[in-house]
Amino acid sequence: MTTQEQLHQWYELAQQLRVDSIRATTVAGSGHPTSSMSPADIMAVLLSNYLRYDFNDPQNPNNDRFILSKGHAAPLLYAMYKAAGVISDEELFSLRQLGSRLEGHPTPVLPWVDVATGSLGQGLPIGVGVALAGKYLDQLPYHVWVLLGDSETSEGSVWEAFDHASHYTLDNLIAIIDVNRLGQRGQTELGWNTQVYAARARAFGWQAIEIDGHNLIEIDQAFSAALAVNDRPTVIIARTKKGKGVASLEDLGGWHGKALKAEQEKQAIAELGGERQIKIEVSKPEEQGQPVFLGNPQPLQLPTYNQGAKVATRRAYGDALTALGAAQPHVVALDAEVSNSTYAEDFAEAYPERYFEMYIAEQQMIAAAVGLQVRQYKPFASSFAAFLSRGYDFVRMAAVSRANIKLVGSHAGISIGQDGPSQMALEDLAALRAVWSSTVLYPSDANQTAKLVSQMSDRNGIVYLRTTRESTPVIYGSDEEFPIGGSRIVQSSDRDQATVIGAGITLHEALKAYDRLRNEDILVRVIDAYSVKPIDVQTLHQAARDTNGNLVVVEDHWIEGGLGAAVLDAFAGIGSTPTYNGPRLRLIKLAVQDMPGSGTPEELLHAAKIDADAIVEAVKSQVRQPVGV
Amino acid sequence: MTTQEQLHQWYELAQQLRVDSIRATTVAGSGHPTSSMSPADIMAVLLSNYLRYDFNDPQNPNNDRFILSKGHAAPLLYAMYKAAGVISDEELFSLRQLGSRLEGHPTPVLPWVDVATGSLGQGLPIGVGVALAGKYLDQLPYHVWVLLGDSETSEGSVWEAFDHASHYTLDNLIAIIDVNRLGQRGQTELGWNTQVYAARARAFGWQAIEIDGHNLIEIDQAFSAALAVNDRPTVIIARTKKGKGVASLEDLGGWHGKALKAEQEKQAIAELGGERQIKIEVSKPEEQGQPVFLGNPQPLQLPTYNQGAKVATRRAYGDALTALGAAQPHVVALDAEVSNSTYAEDFAEAYPERYFEMYIAEQQMIAAAVGLQVRQYKPFASSFAAFLSRGYDFVRMAAVSRANIKLVGSHAGISIGQDGPSQMALEDLAALRAVWSSTVLYPSDANQTAKLVSQMSDRNGIVYLRTTRESTPVIYGSDEEFPIGGSRIVQSSDRDQATVIGAGITLHEALKAYDRLRNEDILVRVIDAYSVKPIDVQTLHQAARDTNGNLVVVEDHWIEGGLGAAVLDAFAGIGSTPTYNGPRLRLIKLAVQDMPGSGTPEELLHAAKIDADAIVEAVKSQVRQPVGV
Repeated sequence: MTTQEQLHQWYELAQQLRVDSIRATTVAGSGHPTSSMSPADIMAVLLSNYLRYDFNDPQNPNNDRFILSKGHAAPLLYAMYKAAGVISDEELFSLRQLGSRLEGHPTPVLPWVDVATGSLGQGLPIGVGVALAGKYLDQLPYHVWVLLGDSETSEGSVWEAFDHASHYTLDNLIAIIDVNRLGQRGQTELGWNTQVYAARARAFGWQAIEIDGHNLIEIDQAFSAALAVNDRPTVIIARTKKGKGVASLEDLGGWHGKALKAEQEKQAIAELGGERQIKIEVSKPEEQGQPVFLGNPQPLQLPTYNQGAKVATRRAYGDALTALGAAQPHVVALDAEVSNSTYAEDFAEAYPERYFEMYIAEQQMIAAAVGLQVRQYKPFASSFAAFLSRGYDFVRMAAVSRANIKLVGSHAGISIGQDGPSQMALEDLAALRAVWSSTVLYPSDANQTAKLVSQMSDRNGIVYLRTTRESTPVIYGSDEEFPIGGSRIVQSSDRDQATVIGAGITLHEALKAYDRLRNEDILVRVIDAYSVKPIDVQTLHQAARDTNGNLVVVEDHWIEGGLGAAVLDAFAGIGSTPTYNGPRLRLIKLAVQDMPGSGTPEELLHAAKIDADAIVEAVKSQVRQPVGV
Repeated sequence: MTTQEQLHQWYELAQQLRVDSIRATTVAGSGHPTSSMSPADIMAVLLSNYLRYDFNDPQNPNNDRFILSKGHAAPLLYAMYKAAGVISDEELFSLRQLGSRLEGHPTPVLPWVDVATGSLGQGLPIGVGVALAGKYLDQLPYHVWVLLGDSETSEGSVWEAFDHASHYTLDNLIAIIDVNRLGQRGQTELGWNTQVYAARARAFGWQAIEIDGHNLIEIDQAFSAALAVNDRPTVIIARTKKGKGVASLEDLGGWHGKALKAEQEKQAIAELGGERQIKIEVSKPEEQGQPVFLGNPQPLQLPTYNQGAKVATRRAYGDALTALGAAQPHVVALDAEVSNSTYAEDFAEAYPERYFEMYIAEQQMIAAAVGLQVRQYKPFASSFAAFLSRGYDFVRMAAVSRANIKLVGSHAGISIGQDGPSQMALEDLAALRAVWSSTVLYPSDANQTAKLVSQMSDRNGIVYLRTTRESTPVIYGSDEEFPIGGSRIVQSSDRDQATVIGAGITLHEALKAYDRLRNEDILVRVIDAYSVKPIDVQTLHQAARDTNGNLVVVEDHWIEGGLGAAVLDAFAGIGSTPTYNGPRLRLIKLAVQDMPGSGTPEELLHAAKIDADAIVEAVKSQVRQPVGV
């Protein structure tokens, strides 16, 4: 039974969390005090009695993990850190200031924050990823706690998480929904109708517990019940009041994301019983376990392919990933129900214990990858490249999380043929280039794919590999190297009149064009720009110098933002990019401009004017033109 | 009671739909016959007895609407069109061929297809949009029928649709889930567990009916029950078998997305009772109603702002949208629970009957916009620009749908300040530029915003407006015009040494830099590139000619794919883009390169080197440099 003393301690801590949330935001002049106040009682009990976390060793594999999905309640999180003794009152007052670790929404700039939040509906799907790691890979008994706002349950990604968590029986995952009834601009869709939340959660296979989120005994009992269940995840649906504890704020509209003015602050703090400086000793995990390593690392034996054979790069991806799996026990794979198309199924068959089927839920897939890398796994997540666009916000946020994930998109471009435009990724290079910390790779051959996949594993940031559906000729030897940031000069002479730059499927069109042009005694350099970001600036500059500034870039992508844009950037003045000093640039971009339909790959490449015919024509238009116009 | 004759007719039609799905895919050599066969009985009954549709007048406002969310079952849809007498057997055999209207997945190239499908989980949320139009705007009694696959219910967007459909009591919306148990690579998550589907649907407020999807009587009864309910949407959860009717296919793995070979086809057709050439008369809608026009159009009176005042462009968006609402009764607005930040709330207050609160569900918001434009409404959908990235796949598919929608993203860039990177859109220009049919606008001033908003209404395709959180000076008169595709030369002289190109917040930094440079006797041209796509190529070329090729582009966006990329494209050889013939281009791109944190807008602009200081430095580096390097 809970003692009166215990209740008093919790109460005092909760009031301190409220007071500190107000103090920090008032100093900052902005932020979300009222959203921080509604779940303060719940957090007080969690921090005092349930969380198992060694603040001095955030990487301790036995630590529980806490994700503040309602990231705008960052002041509450920082107040908790203060109560735990790891940040000072002084640092709390740096909230939202330039250079402070206490950003407006939490990011891993703080050592105790695993993932950035603030785009709502992401914390729970990421929590699923961490819980998958805990239950199936680490096999350690830690818990993953996720605090959600009620508004964010409108996001479908939250229901992808509900679905996957029960599918994978994640009894180590505990969600708390802070049902304070008020969103940014008014009442939420469901208000305080906690029964509906509970019914939905139960239909998705969860234990659902409805409580008064300001009743400390109910909170305590709910946490106990959550820890007791061992066949499903638990969600605690807590009815709360926004701005709880201050009459002028409590359950009132118009206070979302507003700091109190000095006079209001004074009154509010008085009402909450004044400032406190309570420090609590957060319990460290009792367990001293180590993650279960899944298999013994073998020397890396990448697949090899014979030159001249026809092999799809997606096929090589599956082979290489499987090889990587043998060599690196931390490599894990996820796929969104198309593993027989992306060839992630090879890995799934070889290492079923390290493969997670994510069904058709790309947001959850990317979020799970982010969660898995929190625990140092190296997730490769694959789907059709077109469908990765479903999770673009998760990729954007993964960058804010400083996450290290690998995304693999197959079936890129119109060269997929008959299936039509819904299945064709034509914007993926643009979208993925415009992500901080990203690497964008687009191999043209199976041996090259294998070498790139092996480098992806240790590459930090968001690493994207674009693969091709069609089988294409193997043009490189299996012993060649393809460093990220490099390129490959596939054809060159000392008489080159232009340079053709392709990648993936279009490199093969460039090679066909090379042959035809050579028959007409026009020699061109052909560059395989397999590393779209970072791009090989020096090789491009040299080619432009050697070929009179004539460049033709050809890509199976919309005209905007892809390979052509990457090449143009190599010649622009951007930060530390070396300056180009050669003949004046004359660059032609060949890319998809009209909405394609169905057809054979060859027909579609031709219709879009990104095939050998179009390249030949473009090169001729350049070499015929006098220099210097 | 259903007669034996009726049952026989339905059976025969269903068999024909199966046979034709096989015939078309065998000729094509690819496609999805088995996924077309499982729901054939359901479609036979729908087409024969429930659908109200005038195939000769697809725009008839009283028509029911049918959306094939499982777009890979396109052969079934085309077989239905053949049965309805609107396409020939010959055209059926053109499936998946270049130039055919019968693409691998349905697109509006066909007059009876309202929206493209094929990226799963989109049909139902789009159906919500059409049903919103029917119930609240048209106020006509047509129904919206959506056929989903079972696999696609893993997509969170489906649950956003379940949620919103019940919230808006869309009793005119009827979903059918074809539970054939088999996904692309194996069993679905829930298999034939139709009870779980039903429980989830009911928890989300729907009438759920479980049936045997091959029992014609049960199908008929379910449709009747769906039409009878008038307080909620209905979902029919139909247990079916993939490849139904052919023993070598039925309920077997390994047959997803595979056409039968000629010999297999012959056997299968025999088993299904041979070819049939049944034509049916689809019932036309009995009603002859017209859409209820919501209000009488008034002359357009755009808001005006005094030069020198400080007004946020997001504020002007709200004002202008409201003005547009008075002038154009077809303008409707949606927002994802941030209408008090985007200022869509002004429209919501003025025209509550034309405003749809989408809560925090950006995928559903964009899908609803697509659905609303099916019925000729002009939807403006707004959220923080960062969060529109949540619906990127829906934007991509909206382009395939040839949809006319307007997206408005507020709080763009690091200039939002303290809230930190999770709230900052820094990839939106890149992402939206790389969408077919897109227009990308980024105004710098309130009067300009109003003029652009008024042009958005009639602009086809995906039209994106990026607005700024901060208040910025009004620099233009309210009588000035800002055509899409244009730009504005804000400062110029006949002694300009360089050109600075900005848009939105950075234009104001450019103007500050102009003043400072002028004090040092360096004159620069300043261009406001408010139309990022299409960009004003001629004005850029002229500026480059006039200012010795010295261009500085400054944008509050990542370095990739945004305004700088648009300017570079203006000087590249792309299709019909005019050729530049002036001094050699020396272009400096100033954009965000490091992950920002919190800070004041001014601090963050400075830290990112996209403020006046950085512009001054860049211009000086250019004008100091001798020409021709």
